[in-house]
Amino acid sequence: MRCILLKIKYDGSLFHGSQVQNGERTVQQTVQDALKQLFDCDVTFTGCSRTDSGVHATCYCAKVTFESGIEISKLPSALNVVLPSDVSVIDAAEVAESFHPRYDVKKKTYEYHIFLGKYRDPFKDGRSWHYKYQVDRDKIIAAASRFLGTHDFKGFMASGSDVKSTVRTVYDCAAEFNGDDMILRITADGFLYNMVRIITGTVMDVGRGKIDIKQLDSIIESGDRRRAGVTAPAHGLYLVDVDYGKDVFSH
Amino acid sequence: MRCILLKIKYDGSLFHGSQVQNGERTVQQTVQDALKQLFDCDVTFTGCSRTDSGVHATCYCAKVTFESGIEISKLPSALNVVLPSDVSVIDAAEVAESFHPRYDVKKKTYEYHIFLGKYRDPFKDGRSWHYKYQVDRDKIIAAASRFLGTHDFKGFMASGSDVKSTVRTVYDCAAEFNGDDMILRITADGFLYNMVRIITGTVMDVGRGKIDIKQLDSIIESGDRRRAGVTAPAHGLYLVDVDYGKDVFSH
Repeated sequence: MRCILLKIKYDGSLFHGSQVQNGERTVQQTVQDALKQLFDCDVTFTGCSRTDSGVHATCYCAKVTFESGIEISKLPSALNVVLPSDVSVIDAAEVAESFHPRYDVKKKTYEYHIFLGKYRDPFKDGRSWHYKYQVDRDKIIAAASRFLGTHDFKGFMASGSDVKSTVRTVYDCAAEFNGDDMILRITADGFLYNMVRIITGTVMDVGRGKIDIKQLDSIIESGDRRRAGVTAPAHGLYLVDVDYGKDVFSH
Repeated sequence: MRCILLKIKYDGSLFHGSQVQNGERTVQQTVQDALKQLFDCDVTFTGCSRTDSGVHATCYCAKVTFESGIEISKLPSALNVVLPSDVSVIDAAEVAESFHPRYDVKKKTYEYHIFLGKYRDPFKDGRSWHYKYQVDRDKIIAAASRFLGTHDFKGFMASGSDVKSTVRTVYDCAAEFNGDDMILRITADGFLYNMVRIITGTVMDVGRGKIDIKQLDSIIESGDRRRAGVTAPAHGLYLVDVDYGKDVFSH
């Protein structure tokens, strides 16, 4: 049985998320089906994280097992021939059977893409949040920096989540602007459910003046979801880096 | 009757080009329908050029006439509410009845987008030409520059076209690289049918070594379509600027 880590890029618009759900079109189901079609064998698929419907990834990692003698360097192209156009395998590496694509993650990085232009941009449809409020860019930059460090992010988690600890360490949280395009980039040792989308919504609420930046530290420390900002929509979110503490894809 | 010039941005993937064709979904039909829906009146639409199925535009200009007292500054937003997500009106200005959106054009600029990465990119699907050959980037840059100036571009026109003169003046023709992304940008006083796509295909044929750059000047002067390169696919092409020699959209 081959154990292989795939690096997968996908436009999440037409996927019901990454993980298999009964009858829905998911990234997992699509990649599994492609492997089965190529190698006519049993396939397992374990992803690095669960991404929601509409969320995108430029480097989703998944461990797959299957039987085949294919050269590892030929696997991405072979898969891309049978995969649909909204998902592509961009790298592949042999990994140990003990390697776990989720538990072995040291850091992950997400980007949240926002478009601040006055009118809709057809090329950003489904790929960034069209934010129509006037914002103070300096306040956004300042607000993003308040999330750095180790905090209990209980207030930045969708209600109903069930996790042992809500403490996470944010290594990087910064907003960049390029004309009317904005990217909020966040690196952490882990993320609670909807954490990036709630942080983004909160940062934007500060930017438009709905939340006073002086209150932000106390909002974070309060652990009260009701005091944090809105949950930004799924379609602006991108998983852009998964760090295993070593270059698993070195060739 | 109001005469208004609209600046329109569209993802051409799901349009059968810009101009009305019986029963097909076109940009013209879609914008006309939106105006009719808003103002319940007769509408005319004259575009700045004909773009093919799959071709995109960030600044397509079209003169529309209709009856309405709507403030010009409110027209784009009103239209965008009823237009589908792959087309957006990004500016509007009153123009004289004598203004012609095609005949009054002084220069137009097209971009051709190419992706040189090894594996398909789902985010560029339908939006750039995935070019899989190894290319010499310096040769591409050099080849592009050979198209500058006034030439008879007869060899860079789709066969069967019917125009009075095939002489055009190219003011700018340059290739830019950013990682695996390439943009060929061409400004001219006018373009023959498929001219940008054939120039692009020819430049890429030079880049991959199929056409010798030393032959390029004689290929251009020959006027022989068979000596020029392939026609690059429609979906990498963008109309990005229409210059009327004055700022018609000044507010």
